[in-house]
Amino acid sequence: MAVYTEVADEDLRAFVGEYDIGAVVSCKGIAEGVENSNYLLQTDRGNYILTLYEKRVNPTDLPFFIGLMEHLARQGLRCPTPVAGRDGIALRHLCDRPAAIVSFLKGLWPRRITAAHCAALGRAMADLHQKGLSYAGSRPNSLGPKAWRPLFEQEAHRTDEVKPGLADFLRHELDHLERHWPQDLPIGIIHADLFPDNVFFQGDEVSGLIDFYFACTDFLAYDIAICLNAWCFEDDGSFNITKAHLLLWNYQQVRPLSAAEFRALPILARGSAIRFLLTRLYDWLNTPAGAFVKRKDPLEYERKLRFHASIEGAEAYGLHHDAPAAGKQ
Amino acid sequence: MAVYTEVADEDLRAFVGEYDIGAVVSCKGIAEGVENSNYLLQTDRGNYILTLYEKRVNPTDLPFFIGLMEHLARQGLRCPTPVAGRDGIALRHLCDRPAAIVSFLKGLWPRRITAAHCAALGRAMADLHQKGLSYAGSRPNSLGPKAWRPLFEQEAHRTDEVKPGLADFLRHELDHLERHWPQDLPIGIIHADLFPDNVFFQGDEVSGLIDFYFACTDFLAYDIAICLNAWCFEDDGSFNITKAHLLLWNYQQVRPLSAAEFRALPILARGSAIRFLLTRLYDWLNTPAGAFVKRKDPLEYERKLRFHASIEGAEAYGLHHDAPAAGKQ
Repeated sequence: MAVYTEVADEDLRAFVGEYDIGAVVSCKGIAEGVENSNYLLQTDRGNYILTLYEKRVNPTDLPFFIGLMEHLARQGLRCPTPVAGRDGIALRHLCDRPAAIVSFLKGLWPRRITAAHCAALGRAMADLHQKGLSYAGSRPNSLGPKAWRPLFEQEAHRTDEVKPGLADFLRHELDHLERHWPQDLPIGIIHADLFPDNVFFQGDEVSGLIDFYFACTDFLAYDIAICLNAWCFEDDGSFNITKAHLLLWNYQQVRPLSAAEFRALPILARGSAIRFLLTRLYDWLNTPAGAFVKRKDPLEYERKLRFHASIEGAEAYGLHHDAPAAGKQ
Repeated sequence: MAVYTEVADEDLRAFVGEYDIGAVVSCKGIAEGVENSNYLLQTDRGNYILTLYEKRVNPTDLPFFIGLMEHLARQGLRCPTPVAGRDGIALRHLCDRPAAIVSFLKGLWPRRITAAHCAALGRAMADLHQKGLSYAGSRPNSLGPKAWRPLFEQEAHRTDEVKPGLADFLRHELDHLERHWPQDLPIGIIHADLFPDNVFFQGDEVSGLIDFYFACTDFLAYDIAICLNAWCFEDDGSFNITKAHLLLWNYQQVRPLSAAEFRALPILARGSAIRFLLTRLYDWLNTPAGAFVKRKDPLEYERKLRFHASIEGAEAYGLHHDAPAAGKQ
C-alpha cells in the first residue's frame, strides 16, 4: 500500500497543463505499487497513470527506469510508456517529488495463477529480455548476492524470533550461495520483481508488464528464477511442475537458454528465494505487529528455498535441456 | 485507507456479466473510502465504481443507502447512481460481501479549500436536503447525541492520555449538550459526513457528492454544522468567517433557514465537533502507534468545539438572520 501524497487540484492542473494530453477529468489514488504514489489520471482525451516517486526510490535511478520504459515501448513491448511534456521531458516534478505520467495499460493482474498464465508469462519475459538487450542504460542489482549477507547480519540477532534455527540455516545457505554463485551467464536487463501483481492479462494473454522500479542489469536467468518462486508454488507450499514446465518451455520458444543457464536455475532459484526471504524478514521485524499493512510471510520463502536446495537438478522444473527449443544452443 | 478484498478475475467477469455494462477492461482498487473496498472498474463502455461493503457497514442499512442514491440521482442530484443488473437488482454479492456498481463521477475533491468551494458547497448541500425530503426511507443517526456519552465512557479512563483535563472538559460539554440540544428543528435526510473528500468539484462548481454511508434522518441544520467544522477552519485552527458566510448565504439561496435553525447553529456545531472528536479519540486510542494508517488528530476538534462554545451566537458565522434570503421565513 502506497504512501499517498495529496496533490492539490491547482497543482495538478498546472502540472498536466505542461503536457499535450487534454484537461483533467478525475484523479484517484490507486492501491497498487508499494514504493510510490500512483494515481489513475483521467483527462478528456484518455486515461493515464501519474506516479510520484517517494523516498524509497533513488532519484538518480529514475532516468534509467524512465529510459528503459521508453526503450521497451519503442520496441513494441506492452509496458507503461512515459509521456513527455511539451518540452520533450518525461521526468518532471510535482509536490516536491520527481513525477512522471505514463500510459494506462488494460488488463487485470491474476489473483489465481493458472498454468496458462505461466505459459504466457514465459514468452512475455523472454520478449522483455530480448528487447532489453539493445538498451544503453545499465544499473547494478542493489539487491543482488553482495547485498544479502549485510541484509542478513543487520537483523541476525532477531532472526530466530521468527523461527528458531532460522539464523543458522540462513548463514549456511549464504555460505553455499557465495561459494556456488555462477560467474558467467548471459547478462541483460531484468525486471527483478515480476510477481503476479506486475503482470496484466486480458484472458490468457499478457497485456502488459508494469513496475520497472527494481529493473537492473543481471543474469537473465535470474529473472526466470524469481518467477519460478513467484508463480509456480501453490498456496499449500507445493511446487507445481506443470506451471514451471510451461513457463520454461514458452520462454525458450522466444529465447532459448544455454546449457549453463539451464544448469544454474536451481542455484539462481535458491538465491532469489533468499533475496525475498531477507527483505520480507527485514519488513517483518520492522513493521509494528498491529499495523494495518499486510506483512508478507518470510517463511513462505524459507520453504521455497528448501525445495530448490533439495532437488537434484534443473530437470525438477519439468524440462530437460535437450527439449526442442533448447536444442539449438 | 480501505481494507481491500482481492477479487479474482474470473469472479469479477462473472459478476460484471450479470450487468449490461460491457466487458471488463481493468479494475483497480482506489485509495478512497475508509469503510469499504472501492475499485475503479473500466469496461469497454465506460467507467464505474465497484464497491464491496466490508464489516463496518451494517448490511441491513444497505437498502436505505442504495435507495437514497437512486432517489437523489432520479431527482437530478449529481451523486453515484446505482447500476442495476439485468434482473433489475442493484445490491448484489461478490466475494461473500454485499456489492454494488455505481456510476463514475467526474471531478476532484479539493485539497485546499477556497471560499468559492464553500459557496458552491452551500448550494449543493441545500439541494441535497431539498431533494431528500421526498425519499421514503429513514434511518436514525447512529452517531447522534444519544451515542456520544456511551462513546465517551468507553474510553473515559484513557482520555487524559491524549491531553490532561480532556475527560473533564468532555464530561461538562456532554452535560451542556444534553441539556441544550434542540428538540424541534426541521428534519430530513442528511449526508452526515460531508467532508471535502466527499465533494467533487470541476473548477469552482460541485460536480458530485459521494459516500452516503453515514446518511441518516436528522436535523437538516446539523449537516450545515458538520460543514462549518469541516470546511471553515484554516490549518492553523483559525475560523474563516468569509467561508462560513458564503456557505450559509448560498445554502439559503436554495433552502432558507428558519430563525430557530439559525439560532441553533452554535449548539449544533458544538455537537458535531464532539461527535468527530469522540470517534477520532476512539480511533486514536485504538490504533497502534506505529501503524501505517494516518490517525486523525482528535484535538483538532477540541479546538473547534471551544470556538463554538466561545461565541455569542450564530452571527459569529458571518450572517445575520435578517440577511436577504432568510428574510422570507
